[in-house]
Amino acid sequence: MSQASQPVLIDGRWTPSAGREAFTAVNPATRKPLSDAYPVSSWSEIEQALKAADRAFQASRGWPGERFARFLERYADLIDARADRLVASAHQETGLPVDPRLKNVELPRTSNQLRQAAAAAREGSWALPTIDTKQNIRSMLAPIGPVAVFGPNNFPFAFNSIAGGDFAAAVAAGNPVIAKGHSSHPGTTKLFAEAAQEAATETEMPPGFVQLIYRTSHDDGARLISHPLIGASGYTGARSAGLFLKQMADAVGKPIYLELSSINPVVILPAALSERADKIAEEFTGSCLMGAGQFCTNPGLVLMLAGPATEEFIAGVTKRFEAAPVGTLLGAGVERSLTEGIKQLREAGAKLLTGDKPGDGERFSRANTLLRVDGATFIRDPHRLQTEAFGNASQMIVAKDIEELKAVLACLEGNLTGCVYSDTSGKDDSTYDQIAPALRQKVGRLLNDKMPTGVAVSPAMNHGGPFPATGHPGFTAVGIPAAIRRFAVLQCYDAVRPNRLPPQLRNQSPSNKLWRLIDGQWSTGDIPA
Amino acid sequence: MSQASQPVLIDGRWTPSAGREAFTAVNPATRKPLSDAYPVSSWSEIEQALKAADRAFQASRGWPGERFARFLERYADLIDARADRLVASAHQETGLPVDPRLKNVELPRTSNQLRQAAAAAREGSWALPTIDTKQNIRSMLAPIGPVAVFGPNNFPFAFNSIAGGDFAAAVAAGNPVIAKGHSSHPGTTKLFAEAAQEAATETEMPPGFVQLIYRTSHDDGARLISHPLIGASGYTGARSAGLFLKQMADAVGKPIYLELSSINPVVILPAALSERADKIAEEFTGSCLMGAGQFCTNPGLVLMLAGPATEEFIAGVTKRFEAAPVGTLLGAGVERSLTEGIKQLREAGAKLLTGDKPGDGERFSRANTLLRVDGATFIRDPHRLQTEAFGNASQMIVAKDIEELKAVLACLEGNLTGCVYSDTSGKDDSTYDQIAPALRQKVGRLLNDKMPTGVAVSPAMNHGGPFPATGHPGFTAVGIPAAIRRFAVLQCYDAVRPNRLPPQLRNQSPSNKLWRLIDGQWSTGDIPA
Repeated sequence: MSQASQPVLIDGRWTPSAGREAFTAVNPATRKPLSDAYPVSSWSEIEQALKAADRAFQASRGWPGERFARFLERYADLIDARADRLVASAHQETGLPVDPRLKNVELPRTSNQLRQAAAAAREGSWALPTIDTKQNIRSMLAPIGPVAVFGPNNFPFAFNSIAGGDFAAAVAAGNPVIAKGHSSHPGTTKLFAEAAQEAATETEMPPGFVQLIYRTSHDDGARLISHPLIGASGYTGARSAGLFLKQMADAVGKPIYLELSSINPVVILPAALSERADKIAEEFTGSCLMGAGQFCTNPGLVLMLAGPATEEFIAGVTKRFEAAPVGTLLGAGVERSLTEGIKQLREAGAKLLTGDKPGDGERFSRANTLLRVDGATFIRDPHRLQTEAFGNASQMIVAKDIEELKAVLACLEGNLTGCVYSDTSGKDDSTYDQIAPALRQKVGRLLNDKMPTGVAVSPAMNHGGPFPATGHPGFTAVGIPAAIRRFAVLQCYDAVRPNRLPPQLRNQSPSNKLWRLIDGQWSTGDIPA
Repeated sequence: MSQASQPVLIDGRWTPSAGREAFTAVNPATRKPLSDAYPVSSWSEIEQALKAADRAFQASRGWPGERFARFLERYADLIDARADRLVASAHQETGLPVDPRLKNVELPRTSNQLRQAAAAAREGSWALPTIDTKQNIRSMLAPIGPVAVFGPNNFPFAFNSIAGGDFAAAVAAGNPVIAKGHSSHPGTTKLFAEAAQEAATETEMPPGFVQLIYRTSHDDGARLISHPLIGASGYTGARSAGLFLKQMADAVGKPIYLELSSINPVVILPAALSERADKIAEEFTGSCLMGAGQFCTNPGLVLMLAGPATEEFIAGVTKRFEAAPVGTLLGAGVERSLTEGIKQLREAGAKLLTGDKPGDGERFSRANTLLRVDGATFIRDPHRLQTEAFGNASQMIVAKDIEELKAVLACLEGNLTGCVYSDTSGKDDSTYDQIAPALRQKVGRLLNDKMPTGVAVSPAMNHGGPFPATGHPGFTAVGIPAAIRRFAVLQCYDAVRPNRLPPQLRNQSPSNKLWRLIDGQWSTGDIPA
C-alpha cells in the first residue's frame, strides 16, 4: 500500500490504489527521478476496473454515435484549454522539445484526432451498415466491449493510452476504455485522465467509461487483456512484451491490435542520387534524427546500389550525422536498448560509420549512429541485421546490383512503411518496376520520394503492416474510419422486426449523412417502404 | 509411397503423391470403405505446393478483378455441367440426401456463390478503395497471398475446400488457394479440383493457382498454415483441431479464420408458445433434424420460461423427435462425438427426454435425441452443459423466471446465431427487450421468429460470431463482399506517383461501377484532375 502514490481513476472516481508498489518517472534531461509516485495496480483493482467498464458498456450500448461524439469533443476542448500544462509535463517526462514538437505538432494532432473520431462517431458510416432488402437481412459493426489500451513511450500525446489514436478509435466505436499509462510519462497521462473524466461527467457518460491505471505486473497485464469482460486491446510498444500479450489474448480469442517494431526501409535509386543526393541526405537526416529517432516509422534501413554516388551520399550523411545535434532519449530503457541494438548489428557484420558512443551531458542520449553493411552480408544473416535500434541510428545497405537488392527486399520482415526515391526524369523507372512489388508486399504504406516519419491522420492512411510490424495486416492504428473498425464486432439482424432494429438499419435512415450499402449500392437515402 | 492412391494437384499438374500413407473414405450408409485410396501428403510435397502457390501469387498480383472473375465463372459453369457426378459422389461419401439437399440446394448454392464472388471481384468495391485527395494518400485492400483452406465434413459442396465459401472469397480477393480436402469426401473434392484446374487452364491462371492435397499429418497442417509463404488460412471444423492451428498461426502472425463449434440458442417466449406452439415445434424439429442436424447453425439449445405451455411444447417436440425419421450421420467420427457429447451433457445434469441410443440399420446414425435441464443446473455448470452434440440432438433449458433466463444467457459462450420467438400481438415485447441485449452480445446473427439453419449468401449475412464460434468477431465466412476482406491486407500509397498507382486508386476510375471513398464520400465517379 503506497499511501503517497497518486490515485487511480476507477469507476468514475479518483481512488487510492490498493497496489503495494509504486514508481516514479525520470526526467530524461537530468536522469533524476521526478517527485510524484505512481502505483503499480493490484489485480483486485484491475478487476474493479473491468467490472466498472462492463457496467459502463451495458449502460451505453446502443447509444447513438452523437453521445460518444459529444464526449470526445468536450474532451478535445479541455485538452486544448490545458495545453500548457500538458506540454510542460510531457516535456519534463519525455525530454521531447516543446516547440515545435509537443506544443505545435503533437498536441493539436491529438485534439484534432479526437474531433475526427467524434465526427465519425456522429456520422456512423464507419460501421458499414449493410442492408439486403430482398432477404431482409441487415448488418453493421457494433462496439466490441471494454477496450484496454497500452500506450507507448514515444508519443505522450498522440498515442497516449487515454488520449491517443487507440483511445479515440475505441471510444468512437462506442467502447469504454481502460487505459494503462506508460510508465515514462504518468504525470502527463494523469492530466489527460483528469480532463477525460471531467468531459465524461459533463457529457453524462456512465461511470467507468474512461479509467486509468498506471502500471501492472506482467502477469496482471496479461490477465487484463484476456479477461472475459474485455472486448479487445490495443498495444503499442516493444516487441517482446507485445508478443507475450498477443499470445495470451489469442489463446482466448480476444482481438489485440499491436504495433510493434518496424525499421522502415528506404530505397534510394541511382538516378535519384545523381539528381538530388544532397536534398535526399538532408531529408533522410532530418527524418532519422528528429525526436532522437524515436518514431515507429523512423527510417532504420537505407537500401542503395553500389557506386560512387552511393559512396558520396553515405559520406554526406555521415557528416550530417556528426554535425547534427544529439537528441535526448526518452529514458534509460531506450538508451540501453539502442546501445544493445547497435551492438547486435555490429556483431552481425554491420560496420560503424559514426556514433555508437555515449551522448553528452547528464541526459539520456547516444551519439547519432550510422552503420553500413553490404547486401551479401545482410542476406546471410537477415534476422540479426534487422534488429531494431530504436533511436537516432540507421543502417545503410549497399547491394552490388539489382538482383542483390531484390534478394535483400525478399529477406525483409513486415514493416509499417517502405519508401522509394527515384529521379524525376524516368531513368529509375525500370528499376522501380522491378523492386516496388517486392517492397509493396512487405509494408503497410508505400511512399515515393518522401520520408516515412509523418503519419497523417487521413481516412486513407495505413499505419499498420505485415507481422511483426503489427499482429494483422488488414488493420490500421491511424486513420478514421478504418482504425475504428478494429474495436467492433459484426452484428447481423435476420428477419428482426423493424422496431427492434438499430436505427442505422431501419428503412428510414436516422440521418442523411449516414452511408449505407443497400442492395450492393452505397446510399445516404432511405429505403422506400 | 502409395502407388495405388489418387494423385494430388500441385503446380498445375496431377502428380503421384510422395506420401507413404493412404486412406479411403467410408460410405456412411453401409459403413463400408469406398474403393479409391487417397494419399496423406508428405511435407516435401506440401512445400512444393507452397512454392508453386507463391509463384502463382507473384504472377497474378496486380491483375484486374476481371481475371479472377473469369476463372470463377468458368469454374461455376463446369460445376453445374458436372452436377450429376458431383451429387452422386457426395451422396455416396456423406450419406446426405440427393434431393432436395445436395442436388437442388447445396450444389446451386455453391456455383451461385462462385458467381457472386466473381461479380464482386469484377466490380472491385469489396476492397474499399479510399482516397484522400488533399493529402494524396490512397489505400485499398489487396490480396494477402496464398490461402490454405481446410474444409469441414458437413458441406461437401458449399464449404468444400476447393469450391466453397472460403475458396470463393480467397480467389475473389486475388489469392491462390491450397485446398486441404476433408477426409470424409475426397472423391467429391477431387471432382471439384478437376473442374477447378480445367477452368484455371482455360482462363489462363498461373500453374499452382488452385492446388489440392487430401490429408496431412497434424504437424504438417500446422507447418502449412504458419509457413512464411502462406498469406492466411481458413478452417471450418472441430474446435480442438482448429484451436491447435490457431495457436500455431497466431504465433507467427498469420491470419487464420476459424469457424468452430456453435450451439445456436433459440429463446421461445411465453406468448409465442401460447400463440403458435405447434408451428414452432414443427419448425424447430425440422431445423434440428434436417441433414441429421449436421449444421454449424443447428439449434442445439432451446431456452424457455417454466410453465404449462412450455411443458406441453416439450412434450410435443419429444413426440416429433420420436416420430421423425433418423438421418444418416456423416461418419464414424461424427457418430462417436455425438454419442460422447450427449453423454457429457447427461453427466452434467441434463435429463434425457428421448433418444441417446443407436440408430438403425448398417449406417452411421444415432436416435433423434432431446435433453432437458433447468436453468439453475445450467448456471451451475455452464461450460459442460454447452458441450456441442453435433448431430440430431438438442437440449431444452427451462428457466424459472426472466432473471434466471438472463443469467443463463449471461453464461453462454460465443455463438454463430441466436433466435428469439415472440408473439405477434406484443405480449412478449417487454420480455424481448429485457433479454435481447444479452443475447445480441453473444451471437453473430440475431433472428426473430425464424430458425437459424438457413445461411443466405447475402452481403448483409454474418456467418461469424464471438469466440469460440470463430476466432475473431469482426469477420464473416459467408456473405460477399465482407467475406472476401478476410483474405486481404491493407495497402496504402502515400505520395506515390500517379502512373504507379493501382488503377483503382487513380484519379480516373477504371469502371463506373467501382465504389470508392473519396474524401469521405462514397462515389462511383472520377476525381477531377
